[in-house]
Amino acid sequence: MARVHNFNAGPAALPLSVLEAAQKEFVDFQGTGMSLLEHSHRGKDYDAVHQQAIALMRELLAVPDDYQILFLQGGASQQFAVIPMNLLPADKSADYVVTGAWSQKAFGEAKNVGKVRLAASTEDNKAFTRLPTRDEIKVDPSAAYLHFTSNETIHGVEFKDWYPETGSVPLVCDMSSDFMWRKFDVKRFDLIYAGAQKNIGPAGVTVVIARKSLIEKGRTDIPKIFRYSTHAGENSMYNTCPTFGIYIIRNVMQWIKDSGGLDQIETWNREKAKLTYDFLDAHASYFRAPVAKDARSVMNIVFRLPSEQHEEKLIKEAKAAGFVGLKGHRSVGGIRISAYNAVSVDSVKQLLAFLDKFEKANP
Amino acid sequence: MARVHNFNAGPAALPLSVLEAAQKEFVDFQGTGMSLLEHSHRGKDYDAVHQQAIALMRELLAVPDDYQILFLQGGASQQFAVIPMNLLPADKSADYVVTGAWSQKAFGEAKNVGKVRLAASTEDNKAFTRLPTRDEIKVDPSAAYLHFTSNETIHGVEFKDWYPETGSVPLVCDMSSDFMWRKFDVKRFDLIYAGAQKNIGPAGVTVVIARKSLIEKGRTDIPKIFRYSTHAGENSMYNTCPTFGIYIIRNVMQWIKDSGGLDQIETWNREKAKLTYDFLDAHASYFRAPVAKDARSVMNIVFRLPSEQHEEKLIKEAKAAGFVGLKGHRSVGGIRISAYNAVSVDSVKQLLAFLDKFEKANP
Repeated sequence: MARVHNFNAGPAALPLSVLEAAQKEFVDFQGTGMSLLEHSHRGKDYDAVHQQAIALMRELLAVPDDYQILFLQGGASQQFAVIPMNLLPADKSADYVVTGAWSQKAFGEAKNVGKVRLAASTEDNKAFTRLPTRDEIKVDPSAAYLHFTSNETIHGVEFKDWYPETGSVPLVCDMSSDFMWRKFDVKRFDLIYAGAQKNIGPAGVTVVIARKSLIEKGRTDIPKIFRYSTHAGENSMYNTCPTFGIYIIRNVMQWIKDSGGLDQIETWNREKAKLTYDFLDAHASYFRAPVAKDARSVMNIVFRLPSEQHEEKLIKEAKAAGFVGLKGHRSVGGIRISAYNAVSVDSVKQLLAFLDKFEKANP
Repeated sequence: MARVHNFNAGPAALPLSVLEAAQKEFVDFQGTGMSLLEHSHRGKDYDAVHQQAIALMRELLAVPDDYQILFLQGGASQQFAVIPMNLLPADKSADYVVTGAWSQKAFGEAKNVGKVRLAASTEDNKAFTRLPTRDEIKVDPSAAYLHFTSNETIHGVEFKDWYPETGSVPLVCDMSSDFMWRKFDVKRFDLIYAGAQKNIGPAGVTVVIARKSLIEKGRTDIPKIFRYSTHAGENSMYNTCPTFGIYIIRNVMQWIKDSGGLDQIETWNREKAKLTYDFLDAHASYFRAPVAKDARSVMNIVFRLPSEQHEEKLIKEAKAAGFVGLKGHRSVGGIRISAYNAVSVDSVKQLLAFLDKFEKANP
């Protein structure tokens, strides 16, 4: 079948060239007579891939030397527990900023580990359609850390122009759905984590970028497998790592570099978002975008149609026309356009033309 | 390059037909216009794969209805912690049988979670070359569970003719490196776990098969992500599952079925092991197999040569001749032949002919 326009929220679109290259060497990896899937994680062929993935990510994001990049398993949801297990001592409390379903889930899981406190919440009438103001975020100066979610995949709310100011309190960020959509200043954070399956790879790998001094200070009264220090000490090879996922990440990193780096990726992402929001605003009586303008996500663009019947019809007809993944998350309904790095500007243009036609045909 | 004979200990050989089929549909999965990597884990296309993987494993192993099959992340090493987190209450102790490096690691990690006790150890002069006798295993009748490792991948020691008797104490088994090499009676166990990257798939998926009543009794004062009940309640879709790994497992399950089921797989595995051990025994003055005969692993066959120089030369020349993965684990040295399900009888025959020639050429 012709390649579809893939607006899935994650797992999501990957660059076609990355997929084609992986396909080509899928059975015989680089002339070794084995698939990458069959290579030992301790062998030199896989090891080169592993090192390249880390080095390319470090280069693209200009990750400083005093930060370590880890490739872990279990998804961001596992980090919701592992972060407080490592960083929250029994005599301290951790601050959480809740701006949508994912930060709420992180907050809820942290309660199963230790003492937590809400530093801000935008759950106004359960809506989550805005960011907190800077003043609304009340940081406990003795908190073990402050956690926030830079992009809420379900609610389409993103911190893109500023991040919470926490003074000497370590800043921890779930960047799962907006990691590497552009360059950012890694030094603003103490720990960043992201599931790979949005912008950089397939499901099954979680990236953690953390200040080495923070890793070293982590609790040692937890199981060894959950200590960041364990994985840091073994360069993410303490146990068998998810080799194929890391290989795809390596190839996506190379694709970003070959595309002109994160500045070029950011240009495309901003263009896709501007085209889409401009379209929605110009058709605001039909397509209702609920998120406050300064909080609108570049990655996940959510909106409603005049009725749920309209929405169902749109999703169905869009799919038939080759636009997939437009259904909003089951917890909120509506329509969601996830336009991650591998979604082209052209795919978005074609989708907007489709939406325009749909509106005219379905008043 | 021509396909090599792959004796890697894991990640390991996969059936060529499975790899070729995955390659063919790698960019366009079943005519959907997307790679399987790009499909939503909540979509119907992936969901069918997920259900088939579970159903085929259930069918091949005749898993009873009161057991649940889970696909998790983090490897067996994560289960070393997650098992006591779920099953070991503060007022109880857990029993461990230590027969090699992996059960020792499981025992060590469990100490970071709760109270544990050694029920038996075969660490005789650090050698781990035998199984305990039935009488050596001293089960604490009030233990929360007894844990053992059915096959020690590094030391080549396997429980194949009997399992520990624990009465009413739940029996927990790490089957990572001998899972599905044959049929076995699932009801003998309360919880079985296995990293996929030996007999059934790539790295990044861990299978857990557990009695539903045990899952339900699991501790709820641990993070939600680590409760078996969380994953059981969502059929391993609580959070984004490692979709591609599960897809490969589905295909390997289908390959086992198409090959004649686990009885046929067992016949091949026993033939490979018999050929190899018969060869080693017939050349015992040159190839020294240290493991007691009744403990010899069908999957991981370990032996030494007259000197380390001989071993290095063998590994190098074998690789040049197309036999890879023969180096023993760095912690024990020597030679290891891992002959998992996807390693053919013919590959083993060719390797033994090579070993025979090597012996003659290098007295």
